[in-house]
Amino acid sequence: MTDLSLYSMPSSGNSYKVRLLLALLDRPYRHIACETRSDALERALTEGRLPMGKLPALHLADGTILSESNAILWYLAQDSAWIPADPTAQAQMLAWMFFEQNRHEPVIAVRASLRCYPHRAADATPARMAALLEEGNVILSLLDQALQGRDWLLGDAPSLADISLYAYTHSAGSRGGFDMAPFGAINAWCARMRALPGHVELLQDA
Amino acid sequence: MTDLSLYSMPSSGNSYKVRLLLALLDRPYRHIACETRSDALERALTEGRLPMGKLPALHLADGTILSESNAILWYLAQDSAWIPADPTAQAQMLAWMFFEQNRHEPVIAVRASLRCYPHRAADATPARMAALLEEGNVILSLLDQALQGRDWLLGDAPSLADISLYAYTHSAGSRGGFDMAPFGAINAWCARMRALPGHVELLQDA
Repeated sequence: MTDLSLYSMPSSGNSYKVRLLLALLDRPYRHIACETRSDALERALTEGRLPMGKLPALHLADGTILSESNAILWYLAQDSAWIPADPTAQAQMLAWMFFEQNRHEPVIAVRASLRCYPHRAADATPARMAALLEEGNVILSLLDQALQGRDWLLGDAPSLADISLYAYTHSAGSRGGFDMAPFGAINAWCARMRALPGHVELLQDA
Repeated sequence: MTDLSLYSMPSSGNSYKVRLLLALLDRPYRHIACETRSDALERALTEGRLPMGKLPALHLADGTILSESNAILWYLAQDSAWIPADPTAQAQMLAWMFFEQNRHEPVIAVRASLRCYPHRAADATPARMAALLEEGNVILSLLDQALQGRDWLLGDAPSLADISLYAYTHSAGSRGGFDMAPFGAINAWCARMRALPGHVELLQDA
């Protein structure tokens, strides 16, 4: 038995963040997969199980529903090594997570979704795809520079910032169409993420 | 004397969040105002005082530089009533702050900047302004619904979520060009924010 139910879209990086942390924490949960336009998604929406219609959503035993992937990570990682104890380090970790939602996800994830989801193809104009490519390369360069000479975004130990940024970065080549060859520090960091005990892939259930 | 130096753009909501919290906490700080295209901004950029070129940036006594407005709020509010102690409430507060950076700021703040900053006027095409108006009204409706029947976003007490969302919402009418008349719950909440002891206005120094 488990006290957690996760409504997630398996192919979405925002949902993947939560499934990855749950796997790394070896925490059992009930998974309700809601792919775009699926019956499960329609049912969850109709029944009010997704605040603001957003995935992922974590249902707690007391009926509370948490939304926003990075906020769900914060809840799940309480009292674990995935959140540093020092307030300055916490703020630096959260800074990366706000950067992820404000600058990274709207570019890297959006370009991938325009390429991968047939119902979004009409929005994938050449001009938009080129602009997203250019802006995405700036963002990936910032991330690569931050990872130069360090194993994890905060330094010596992995934190929620790494999980948050990894979700859409690790598939920026295959799904987003970015050339990842210039980003050596990102590639080495992705290999370290994959080597963590309990790691699961994007489309692999825990 | 103070141990904090804040580099901020006085007319920016992201910078305002931090100045507002510092005023509410009655915490002294040195303020370096960096308006767009000012000498102060150029100097701060040249001297590497703004990580990723972003404002606001908070400099601590030990040389640490914190960026991302909501992460700076987290740092400053440690051990204050602005962060709830309960982990579920913390996650709900952070969810609002991630929503702010992912959905609210890129629409409400961007529409205001396109209207108010002359150097952005070329990007303010009628089609873009209309799309931002439509999306912004959806976002303001979500916020208004969340505030129905409660004084603050988390319920009975104000938290960082209120400061974060207030920054660009309170000027969505005057600067963003949104009709705020339909949003009674937002308007009442803004009045409560203005009545908090120590409150400062957007363009008023502490």
